[in-house]
Amino acid sequence: MDSNSNATNPRVTTFVGGRTGEWAVRSQRTLAGESLKPASRISMRIGHDAESEDAVWVVRGVTTNDRYTTSSEKRELISRQVPVGRPEATRSALILLRKSAEWWAMPQDERRQILEEQSQHIAIGLRYLPAIARKLLHCRDMETSQPFDFLGFLDYAPKDEPAFEEMLGQLRATKEWTFIDREIDIRLYKAEV
Amino acid sequence: MDSNSNATNPRVTTFVGGRTGEWAVRSQRTLAGESLKPASRISMRIGHDAESEDAVWVVRGVTTNDRYTTSSEKRELISRQVPVGRPEATRSALILLRKSAEWWAMPQDERRQILEEQSQHIAIGLRYLPAIARKLLHCRDMETSQPFDFLGFLDYAPKDEPAFEEMLGQLRATKEWTFIDREIDIRLYKAEV
Repeated sequence: MDSNSNATNPRVTTFVGGRTGEWAVRSQRTLAGESLKPASRISMRIGHDAESEDAVWVVRGVTTNDRYTTSSEKRELISRQVPVGRPEATRSALILLRKSAEWWAMPQDERRQILEEQSQHIAIGLRYLPAIARKLLHCRDMETSQPFDFLGFLDYAPKDEPAFEEMLGQLRATKEWTFIDREIDIRLYKAEV
Repeated sequence: MDSNSNATNPRVTTFVGGRTGEWAVRSQRTLAGESLKPASRISMRIGHDAESEDAVWVVRGVTTNDRYTTSSEKRELISRQVPVGRPEATRSALILLRKSAEWWAMPQDERRQILEEQSQHIAIGLRYLPAIARKLLHCRDMETSQPFDFLGFLDYAPKDEPAFEEMLGQLRATKEWTFIDREIDIRLYKAEV
């Protein structure tokens, strides 16, 4: 047997919703599609972690290559973005998203056209750097069926919360967002484990 | 727990190399990178199948959305391509590919530029439709680490073998192929199971 066949993809991150974890839930809202059971705490773990007994749900995804970003956009992003996990970023959001079959059936140029030329997804995100840090995980191409296509984890200092709300409001008003058929918005604050 | 968390992604296909299976191995050549143990038969299974005891290796991947194809290219492909599995397609090839870290670090526009504007990957494939049918599977974003990034399964009638060789020769001469750091070429013929 190939020796790598059961090793975890090192780009996997797992979020476990339950009663333990470093992030305490302030709110969990379903904006589209089916809801998830409420969790009071969320744990964010690098890797494909064993599931805790108290888990009410588990979602996971992988970081991957750029799907839409151009060279010039990437240069801008790299010059301004910071990784999640800054000590002052004691607030965060976990946004669980699924896009429709119609979205996925479109060829690459049509999706790019909607995502950026019509919706300015990348440009909107850039305006809020480095205050809002983001980790975007993809779930659609794993071995197991996943309930979402993307997991967006974004963290920020409490003073940047109005900026975060403004950014999210802009994204949700776009043409791209009309292709989102399931969305759950979970707001978190850093808690003692 | 979310009820879908352990279901198999319906887009998964698994290839098991061993001593059983509907495809008999004519040759197994390593063109770049590490080799795989030789198999005498290969079984192609829809889903994330339990591993046979006689397996010497198992590779799997998922069909996914278009990564580079434009609307006009997609219209051409759809009008001419046929699915794998035609009764007359008694020969096939399983091409196992991995691309370098340098490839994956490039933004979308640079990869598209190399794949199509410089290498004509899509245009070359189009010339051999419908004789050569293809199923392309992606392995890079699964939960488990996979030894390859892509699995290409292509089948054809014996009379179309020269066309298949010509197509593969053209692809391997491209700029895109300089980013391939592991490649194993397995040729197969339909056998009694």
